Amino acid sequence: MARPIVSLTTDFGHNDHFVGVLKGVILKLAPEAEIVDISHEVRPYDILDGAFTLAQAYRYFPNWTIHLVIVDPGVGTARRPILANSDHHWFVAPDNGVLSFMYAQEPDHRVRHITSEHYFLSPVSQTFQGRDIFAPVVGWMARGVEADKFGDVVTDYVRFAPPKPKALNETTLQGVIIKVDRFGNLITNITPEDVPRLFQENPPAFKMTVGKGEVSKLNLNYAQSPAGEVFIIVGSSGYLELSTNRGSASRLLQADRGAPVGITFA
Amino acid sequence: MARPIVSLTTDFGHNDHFVGVLKGVILKLAPEAEIVDISHEVRPYDILDGAFTLAQAYRYFPNWTIHLVIVDPGVGTARRPILANSDHHWFVAPDNGVLSFMYAQEPDHRVRHITSEHYFLSPVSQTFQGRDIFAPVVGWMARGVEADKFGDVVTDYVRFAPPKPKALNETTLQGVIIKVDRFGNLITNITPEDVPRLFQENPPAFKMTVGKGEVSKLNLNYAQSPAGEVFIIVGSSGYLELSTNRGSASRLLQADRGAPVGITFA
Amino acid sequence: MARPIVSLTTDFGHNDHFVGVLKGVILKLAPEAEIVDISHEVRPYDILDGAFTLAQAYRYFPNWTIHLVIVDPGVGTARRPILANSDHHWFVAPDNGVLSFMYAQEPDHRVRHITSEHYFLSPVSQTFQGRDIFAPVVGWMARGVEADKFGDVVTDYVRFAPPKPKALNETTLQGVIIKVDRFGNLITNITPEDVPRLFQENPPAFKMTVGKGEVSKLNLNYAQSPAGEVFIIVGSSGYLELSTNRGSASRLLQADRGAPVGITFA
Repeated sequence: MARPIVSLTTDFGHNDHFVGVLKGVILKLAPEAEIVDISHEVRPYDILDGAFTLAQAYRYFPNWTIHLVIVDPGVGTARRPILANSDHHWFVAPDNGVLSFMYAQEPDHRVRHITSEHYFLSPVSQTFQGRDIFAPVVGWMARGVEADKFGDVVTDYVRFAPPKPKALNETTLQGVIIKVDRFGNLITNITPEDVPRLFQENPPAFKMTVGKGEVSKLNLNYAQSPAGEVFIIVGSSGYLELSTNRGSASRLLQADRGAPVGITFA
Repeated sequence: MARPIVSLTTDFGHNDHFVGVLKGVILKLAPEAEIVDISHEVRPYDILDGAFTLAQAYRYFPNWTIHLVIVDPGVGTARRPILANSDHHWFVAPDNGVLSFMYAQEPDHRVRHITSEHYFLSPVSQTFQGRDIFAPVVGWMARGVEADKFGDVVTDYVRFAPPKPKALNETTLQGVIIKVDRFGNLITNITPEDVPRLFQENPPAFKMTVGKGEVSKLNLNYAQSPAGEVFIIVGSSGYLELSTNRGSASRLLQADRGAPVGITFA
Repeated sequence: MARPIVSLTTDFGHNDHFVGVLKGVILKLAPEAEIVDISHEVRPYDILDGAFTLAQAYRYFPNWTIHLVIVDPGVGTARRPILANSDHHWFVAPDNGVLSFMYAQEPDHRVRHITSEHYFLSPVSQTFQGRDIFAPVVGWMARGVEADKFGDVVTDYVRFAPPKPKALNETTLQGVIIKVDRFGNLITNITPEDVPRLFQENPPAFKMTVGKGEVSKLNLNYAQSPAGEVFIIVGSSGYLELSTNRGSASRLLQADRGAPVGITFA
């Protein structure tokens, strides 16, 4: 019998007891669970960042991993706790859109409103429902309680469309930096499919503008450019990224998350 | 047979090999142990912060979890290594007061002085006794060695009283900020029991002063206030906290750990 | 049957999904594996720092732990993925010298060039080969695939000599700070064996110069000096370290990694 696997994605950081308490609560209910951190450094209250982080990771986990996602600026309000599933994974989260990228990737998803309060810790605090609602639900699921025991399927759950680049005219596409990673790589919301001309056999001249800089080189790997040169690369995220060899593109371009990105073809 | 569960609370941070080495040592002795981080970002050398962090977390873990707590400014001196227990948990720590909040919560605790040096790694370094003394003791415990094998019960262990608020006069109570969490919430040492007037049916007017600010609103959840307004809320910690909706109360009030907090009733 | 144990040492930080994805990939192949973080805060692209971190930790793990080490500035280039072993441990890493300290400690090591691409995820990205090459190899190893299945033994692997102190003349030895730890301790590359005079019964007068400071006290533990005094101590790393009681020697001496250290005897 396989042990249940749980992943955690939160904006709790590492400064406090919060993440440890989630794990304690889950293990108290399901001592055999294996709990894995995806990231706890989602930007505080940033639902888009949480949605992106989860979407980059969940498919690499074993089937039927239970992914707990807590970025929850509405904690203590009427926003609903939900239990969702794709055809191979479980997700437990607040109903605030933090699963939106997953919804976009998984046409066969289903969402339940968690209403069975007898699975919660009691009393439920107004400020740490990760401990009192979400972790206990995950613990009971890991222990084998079936999804329909937690509440009914709903269709009016909160979702937003992942930000897509826009064609400003025939030659210019406008996108945005959706993430700056640990190394200072700038991840755009532009995929190769959005700019097929860039990947055709003899691509036309182009320039990408972001922050203070202009970039017109497309690389296959980091080492194709000398230090200090910023280039475009198709990142492991599936998006175009602005990078530099052994340095921070974010620092070189003085650009951060949310910065607009334009790509113009000759 | 349940696998042994170990929690870790230290001031070791994430920059070094220290935490990984603790886990390696434990797993070498007890390969089936499940090891869970509570926090490694206790403020360096800050025994009070370690005591608070542990006290917020340990009760949520499965019974007879072994909680290893290392905040140890006296490493290499004659301060004793101890093995304590409440009626449901084990604790391994230096005898410097870092278990004080637990002692205050658990009237039936018992403390042993760890003297059985044959359980230690050899030689014992003067600077990393987490590796050489504490982790091996935890590993042997996880492997089933009984508590009395490690040393005798002592009663003269180090403990301090958790800081309590003081009545300055009939209308004013003086407390302190004991922790600033990841989100900038300011956790005071004042509990609802300390200020029953605040929670009676028609509470009198009051103001709380902290740092540069004055706060006179008590909320049930974060969303009751617009962004930029600081309010009081009963936090998940059991203490009154100063918070703001989707922002940092610490930044807004320019107040940090150790700041005095006054609450005055009309 | 013991469960396989995997350790992780990377420069991936905690800001992204990277580490979580490594763990997901490994668990998908080997759901029973126990995965332990050594550190993910190796300085970005810093092979020496990665080599040092691994070398401080791996021996404390159970025999035949699989140590995955990813500090990989050459990702996407022709640098080889390798699978190495000492007489008690496995190592999976890029062939860029990040195992050099291990090689120096383990005369009986052996190195294989990983060439069996059918064990990789497909397609292999140019920027996150931790996910697509290294983690899958670890997963298959944890699942029981034997080392020779991954590729042939090579002898021309990359290694550098760990930096050694140099005698400038009969009375002066010159070393370097190789690491600053979380507490601000400055770890030199000088071992007690390099300066036997310091440890003889009546050691001669000496001074150590580093950054803005001169230090001429050798301590057995942190508490032998008052706050604010910097001293030398034999650290748990096996090297001489510059430390101060409950404070940061790095801050007091205004010295960081790479700073030269001189020790001169009278």
